[in-house]
Amino acid sequence: MIKAAVISIGNEILLGKTVNTNLAYIGKKLSGMGINLISSMTVKDQKKSIIEALDLFLPKVDIIITTGGLGPTADDITKKTIADYFHKELKFKESIWNKIIKRFEKRGIILPEINKNQALVPVDFIDLENNYGTAPGLFYSNNNKLFFSLPGVPIEMKYLMDNQVLPILKSEFDVKPIFTTDIHTIGIAESAIAEELNEVEIPKGVNLAYLPQTGRVDLRVYGQDQQKNDKLINFLNDKFKDYIWGIDQSSVAEKIHTELLKTDKTLSLAESCTGGKVQEQLTRFAGSSKYLLGGIVSYSNDVKINVLKVDQNTIENEGAVSYKTALGMANGVMNLTGSDFSGSITGIAGPSGGTEEKPVGTVYICVKSKTKNDIQKYCFSGDRETVRVKSTERLLLNLLRLMKSE
Amino acid sequence: MIKAAVISIGNEILLGKTVNTNLAYIGKKLSGMGINLISSMTVKDQKKSIIEALDLFLPKVDIIITTGGLGPTADDITKKTIADYFHKELKFKESIWNKIIKRFEKRGIILPEINKNQALVPVDFIDLENNYGTAPGLFYSNNNKLFFSLPGVPIEMKYLMDNQVLPILKSEFDVKPIFTTDIHTIGIAESAIAEELNEVEIPKGVNLAYLPQTGRVDLRVYGQDQQKNDKLINFLNDKFKDYIWGIDQSSVAEKIHTELLKTDKTLSLAESCTGGKVQEQLTRFAGSSKYLLGGIVSYSNDVKINVLKVDQNTIENEGAVSYKTALGMANGVMNLTGSDFSGSITGIAGPSGGTEEKPVGTVYICVKSKTKNDIQKYCFSGDRETVRVKSTERLLLNLLRLMKSE
Repeated sequence: MIKAAVISIGNEILLGKTVNTNLAYIGKKLSGMGINLISSMTVKDQKKSIIEALDLFLPKVDIIITTGGLGPTADDITKKTIADYFHKELKFKESIWNKIIKRFEKRGIILPEINKNQALVPVDFIDLENNYGTAPGLFYSNNNKLFFSLPGVPIEMKYLMDNQVLPILKSEFDVKPIFTTDIHTIGIAESAIAEELNEVEIPKGVNLAYLPQTGRVDLRVYGQDQQKNDKLINFLNDKFKDYIWGIDQSSVAEKIHTELLKTDKTLSLAESCTGGKVQEQLTRFAGSSKYLLGGIVSYSNDVKINVLKVDQNTIENEGAVSYKTALGMANGVMNLTGSDFSGSITGIAGPSGGTEEKPVGTVYICVKSKTKNDIQKYCFSGDRETVRVKSTERLLLNLLRLMKSE
Repeated sequence: MIKAAVISIGNEILLGKTVNTNLAYIGKKLSGMGINLISSMTVKDQKKSIIEALDLFLPKVDIIITTGGLGPTADDITKKTIADYFHKELKFKESIWNKIIKRFEKRGIILPEINKNQALVPVDFIDLENNYGTAPGLFYSNNNKLFFSLPGVPIEMKYLMDNQVLPILKSEFDVKPIFTTDIHTIGIAESAIAEELNEVEIPKGVNLAYLPQTGRVDLRVYGQDQQKNDKLINFLNDKFKDYIWGIDQSSVAEKIHTELLKTDKTLSLAESCTGGKVQEQLTRFAGSSKYLLGGIVSYSNDVKINVLKVDQNTIENEGAVSYKTALGMANGVMNLTGSDFSGSITGIAGPSGGTEEKPVGTVYICVKSKTKNDIQKYCFSGDRETVRVKSTERLLLNLLRLMKSE
């Protein structure tokens, strides 16, 4: 199996200022191609540290990808370090410089001279065009080892990975893809699943991994033989059918997005403690305008009463976080927008605002169609953001169940 | 300076299923204490890989922290590997098992036998109580080196880091904290800042780093001498005053949250292409209910017309993405909620929907008070989510400017 390693370069990652999303993106792309990302190292913008990582990985892998440190400023030392490491001079490339000039002209910004650095390429390296920034990627092939250097800005790294690195890898290696299936469960603990599977023999060549999510567990089946995988997938589908809400979704929101796109139905939402998170997540997907009419963030009681027309007495007698207020909100937003389905969330995300009767984490979630209501009370554990994430996912999953029952 | 390394253990990180947010959290906590996180390695759930990482880091650092692989299932091998590495037997600890029993009883779930693994602790190791899960953390001190093993679930890792690891580090080391200040700019390119600073001499012991964000740049000043830092900070504050919108904020949303909390004013929002992102970001902060009344996600034209009372003719003649529609939305939500300030966003986030006149990335943003309107047109580059992030940040920064002008 072809082996790869990633070197993430940047003080900001180790100082905790930046979350390294690049690694996950590269890992997903490589594993999808059947390339084994064996390890990754994060190092500072220091020549010595970068060289140590190169020394560590070069004997072990076929592919090295670095990210970060290709910018124009003095702390960006990746290119110089790599050129030295492979004993190559840096050479000025007119064609890159012309592209940078055009880029700045188009945006009407004065081009600082310092950007001339970005047109330097180590001899024998190939520069990879970067449509989203001024720093080109770099590619070098030597002794059957491939070396790539990509910028650290995520949108630039993604562009280069998809449009430059992957095509090169596909043409260089005859890789056997790994087939991966994620089975998404909710309502059953990781340890309970594991115990149920204790006696089950997993066929050789098929792998099963537990991926705990916030408040739920994914089961990942992967291996190079799709038919062998399928046997295990079918078995799991059957064994845990009461807990499975989807297969191979990037998120709960994507699952609902896909299901709603199949219908001609529309949706509106009224959100209190989630502050718009349900709508924000659905609108990440292009095409959500086909079903999502919009909705109300009714963070204040005034908005609940005046815009959503929740009965003031309900809020006074039952509380803003109650069964009846949740129903009133879902009714209100459906009336306002004329949608086929609606949903509402009202709860106490914390850290303050809890009472003995309704502690932090108490959330009422209503989903409704023209003919049915489904209102549930939950008591979620975790911090403010965890409660909001769990509430958002639960609303979407309850809506899925309601849609299926229609 | 005390040195540390982090070993992140988990196939899911290298497969790209999970973004490693734990590293950023640990990095921030360590750097805040003046501990130098020199490097981090991500490895698979494999004994050999974990041992290689331990061999690499143990001679170089004073502190090693591992995350991941402490769960109850068969792929969680961190504890067994570490016990073997340090030549320690695993011993069953009744007190941990009793806590796990209580935890499951409280949640009314049957306790699977497999969880007994979690009560095993290597001899001479100290178990660290985990309030958010069943896997305790582990601590071992040997030859002036400290070793910590933490679970990979972020909320559990954070709890253990804050409540167990940091107090131990504080008592073991006499560390000199690093003072860090982030200066946030917008509207000036990284390379332009660098060129302006080309001739400026940075005093020894003070460090300056460029941290490019989505559509803006942060400048980080750090060092152990606060007074020396301050000289550079004051200089930068003065030099780039037209571009600086804040100091030491975790996000633009946090800056507005802080500023709005200082006032007695209220805010409401009408969001189209951002789908609720502005409200979702503000409601992440506890206390946002003091000023945020809520608002409308007017994804469809019907909601713009029927709920926000945007003139139908405006939408037909000028378009849903236009100067006048943005103003109509901001007016509408202010009228509905009676807020002191309001804001609106209408634009084309893409990937489709663009025209020659209004290409993808065209966004109109309006912020208004009772007496002033500020409407701006932008043409943002980047993918759908990037356009949404930039729009959200711009609205909040324009609101900040409006608030200051009042």
